[in-house]
Amino acid sequence: MKADVILVSDTTMISDKVPSLNCGMRGLAYLEVKVTGPNKDLHSGHYGGAVANPINELCALIASLHHKNGRVAIPGFYDDVVRLSKKDRDMLNRAPFDLEEYKEFLDIADVKGEKGYTTIERTAIRPCLDVCGIWGGYTGTGAKTVLPSVAHAKVSMRLVPWQSSEKITKLFKEHLERIAPPYVKVEVTPCEGGDGFLIPMSSPAYKAASRAMAEVYGKEPVPARGGGSIAILAQMQKILGIDPLLMGFGLERDTIHSPNESYLLRQLFAGMESIALFYEYY
Amino acid sequence: MKADVILVSDTTMISDKVPSLNCGMRGLAYLEVKVTGPNKDLHSGHYGGAVANPINELCALIASLHHKNGRVAIPGFYDDVVRLSKKDRDMLNRAPFDLEEYKEFLDIADVKGEKGYTTIERTAIRPCLDVCGIWGGYTGTGAKTVLPSVAHAKVSMRLVPWQSSEKITKLFKEHLERIAPPYVKVEVTPCEGGDGFLIPMSSPAYKAASRAMAEVYGKEPVPARGGGSIAILAQMQKILGIDPLLMGFGLERDTIHSPNESYLLRQLFAGMESIALFYEYY
Repeated sequence: MKADVILVSDTTMISDKVPSLNCGMRGLAYLEVKVTGPNKDLHSGHYGGAVANPINELCALIASLHHKNGRVAIPGFYDDVVRLSKKDRDMLNRAPFDLEEYKEFLDIADVKGEKGYTTIERTAIRPCLDVCGIWGGYTGTGAKTVLPSVAHAKVSMRLVPWQSSEKITKLFKEHLERIAPPYVKVEVTPCEGGDGFLIPMSSPAYKAASRAMAEVYGKEPVPARGGGSIAILAQMQKILGIDPLLMGFGLERDTIHSPNESYLLRQLFAGMESIALFYEYY
Repeated sequence: MKADVILVSDTTMISDKVPSLNCGMRGLAYLEVKVTGPNKDLHSGHYGGAVANPINELCALIASLHHKNGRVAIPGFYDDVVRLSKKDRDMLNRAPFDLEEYKEFLDIADVKGEKGYTTIERTAIRPCLDVCGIWGGYTGTGAKTVLPSVAHAKVSMRLVPWQSSEKITKLFKEHLERIAPPYVKVEVTPCEGGDGFLIPMSSPAYKAASRAMAEVYGKEPVPARGGGSIAILAQMQKILGIDPLLMGFGLERDTIHSPNESYLLRQLFAGMESIALFYEYY
């Protein structure tokens, strides 16, 4: 189990004109929530108004998980979040970012997130909570008037150092079970997770990677914090004491985790070149 | 288009030991809500915390549709609701009803509904709002960390005289479009609907039906208000000027609109007998 560095290519760069090299990633806690109301689907006319509807109850539970200021409303959620210095935040925000382009790329009228933080910060140094999937009742064409028995949701929380995925999973589960209304049963099942981590920019490996990419792209890569998660790396870092190095060449245009993912051939070749040079310099 | 009475067998009785004859039904307004965020599914790590999630937004919209006291929070929703006299409410509540049996049958710890009304009233003389279906994002096995582009819900509102299905549909659509946050697009599509109606208990048809059922079941049927909807009957009553008569023999145990519906043969035969006798007496 000995190694000098853990080199992983599973991340993105800011853009193909702005190469970047990750100096950290967020952690993850992923859970499933199941809300059960009556023991069978009911006719929404015969029972509607008198029996709690698990979809309505699930929606109310989910809506209650955010404060108006965009912060996650689970007690203790922010306890272990590292607060960055003004200097570190300024450095992070120096990365090129065009809010208008960002909104246009996603076709949204406005961004939304935790009050007091920029979009870059919201996806890098701040944790968040998203519903990744929801389902319940009748989802076919047209109308079926049913008050369903069960509703489900998949919830992902992105974590930052030094939030523990295990602790946040526990907090989430306990919180939901505590606020569950008496009319329904609420079950929370942990799904998967892992901690976030930081990569020291002063290490020989980071410096060699930076030099290699500078040579290929014609400019020094910008240090960046990845919003995604690679759960095993925090464990490797903790147990083996070896830092990860994230030389990833994905771009936002690849639309990762979306239908029709793609990858630019020129990024593939630039990546191959960068990694070969990294071995040389390292 | 001439007729003496519109006889329909599509309703339930209180129980096979307590025959009942409906003297009204609720109306219906059924709509679909579509919330669109970014123009594609996003990686919940790269964007989570910075881009509004359509599932979270949909849940917040749905949660906002009820006040804490169980009333529907759409402005104007109750404007045309008939308020029953104490005498009429007392009569309604004289129908045999066992709350403990009801909760046990559904396996729920408690009922939930509009404050100040009994369970019988909540499903008979008060309107309500239920989500009949919801879907969005990843709904398969395990974890997929996606911030989805779209989320959907099907919403049913049960109406009482003299709420107009058309007016309530308009109020719902306008309300949702008004409260839609700037981060997402909200589309509301009316699906189907119809008005509620009342049946005069003093009519020769109602009396003949009552006499027929009394003979078959050995006791006078109790007047009841159905919580369900048969949209065409309100139109027939309005346009043709003919009252409906609802001789239905379903029981709650049939679990209508649920998987594994069934129907008791003895109710089928008692129904045939009752209707034959109705023709004779009418």
